[in-house]
Amino acid sequence: MQRAIAILDSGVGGLTVVKEVMRQLPREKIIYFGDTARTPYGPRSSEEVVMFTRQIVDYLLQFGPKMIVIACNTATAVALQEVRKSVSVPVVGVIHPGARTAIKTTRTGIVGVIGTEGTIRSGAYEQALQEISPQTEVLSLACPTFVTLVERGLFNGEEVRKEIGCVLELFRKQPMDCLILGCTHYPFLADVIGEVMGPEVSLINSAEETAREISTILSHSGQLALTGEQPIHQFFCSGDPKLFQRIAQSWLEEQIKVTPIVWQVSRLY
Amino acid sequence: MQRAIAILDSGVGGLTVVKEVMRQLPREKIIYFGDTARTPYGPRSSEEVVMFTRQIVDYLLQFGPKMIVIACNTATAVALQEVRKSVSVPVVGVIHPGARTAIKTTRTGIVGVIGTEGTIRSGAYEQALQEISPQTEVLSLACPTFVTLVERGLFNGEEVRKEIGCVLELFRKQPMDCLILGCTHYPFLADVIGEVMGPEVSLINSAEETAREISTILSHSGQLALTGEQPIHQFFCSGDPKLFQRIAQSWLEEQIKVTPIVWQVSRLY
Repeated sequence: MQRAIAILDSGVGGLTVVKEVMRQLPREKIIYFGDTARTPYGPRSSEEVVMFTRQIVDYLLQFGPKMIVIACNTATAVALQEVRKSVSVPVVGVIHPGARTAIKTTRTGIVGVIGTEGTIRSGAYEQALQEISPQTEVLSLACPTFVTLVERGLFNGEEVRKEIGCVLELFRKQPMDCLILGCTHYPFLADVIGEVMGPEVSLINSAEETAREISTILSHSGQLALTGEQPIHQFFCSGDPKLFQRIAQSWLEEQIKVTPIVWQVSRLY
Repeated sequence: MQRAIAILDSGVGGLTVVKEVMRQLPREKIIYFGDTARTPYGPRSSEEVVMFTRQIVDYLLQFGPKMIVIACNTATAVALQEVRKSVSVPVVGVIHPGARTAIKTTRTGIVGVIGTEGTIRSGAYEQALQEISPQTEVLSLACPTFVTLVERGLFNGEEVRKEIGCVLELFRKQPMDCLILGCTHYPFLADVIGEVMGPEVSLINSAEETAREISTILSHSGQLALTGEQPIHQFFCSGDPKLFQRIAQSWLEEQIKVTPIVWQVSRLY
């Protein structure tokens, strides 16, 4: 049986990675876990995010995945190294793929990053960018309200335009030539963010880039699914399965089945 | 001492990969081998290209590199698997990075590829693209004269424009939305190729994409150079070192030292 790629997120944001894996690696089977009962992770303490991430990884390991993808920037920022140490399969985060693309894309060496408070506070993008390319200048901004828009299913329209325009008003005047969407929720809002930032700024979609790195890593370890039937993906969420299903089906443009998971109190802490 | 990334090519084409590694991974030390005495590889038999590639890899192994990059599409097409079997460090070719980027970039699923006769005849791009994404339609064209332009140091100007316009005249009317520059020499000609193909077609530069995959692979095996002094690169070529140096310095925009290598007859066959 084909081993799956396990993808996890605090909620529906990681579905942007799912969509890209489905598009770029149509032969791969995906198991997704969205922790919608405890979203957003952005404002939580690092300790809490690490604990939540480990719980989900433990849950996903029962399926014997060939790779674990932490499709949440906040969780990648604080839990990637921990999870890497504790499992034997490759663990991919969403920060380095975006950082590498920014390094490839920028001509001025000035890179913008937007993300949740947790991601921005962690300095994980600065670290990833400057560790690889020390001369890179990084401008960053926390945009906490963007996740809430997406988790409510709002991707465009007047309210979204107003909120994004207001949050990015000063930031868009900074001299960057590319902007990392440093939260997997943000590609849902990419059209509006792109309009606000203007055509001079290339948007870097972590989801697209993460799917591409998944392809690279599986390919180099000889683990790409190169044959086989149309895979059947599995979706789990810890919150309202109906809302999750509605957002997922609209984003992925296909019918999916969602299995609700209830965290037991004894497992929460 | 820092272990280098060893990069090899049939001539000066692989310098496009060198330039991108220097830009995207400024801390990495590079050892380059350009087989300018035996360029071009494009029209040669597979057996001969495999033999030449193995000779260069054997030469480079004395430096204890942490990775070998076959920065030549022709050699990647026919020798990558062989070389991978025979060495213990990761071996990166230039075909899959371009293929993966095409899959990420295309919205229509129709991808163009230009390369040498050897690369196009091998069908290596079709295979790489369709093995990952079976629905991809691939249109390919051999452009053997492009390498000769570059090895003569001609990157633009009237002669170049005329030759490229003529070769691509029919091909540019095909319905692709991205075009893989499937030869490491072609980024030297990217400006003119871009003009001829028009703004609707995204050019995919294997050199940029290969440097980015080198970053991904070294990062995932914990082998990125994350500290250290400005690296001093080393360049070897088997043909005229003066012409090589002139082209390399103009392309890399820095002074380099070239060590000429003479193939002994007993080593040739």
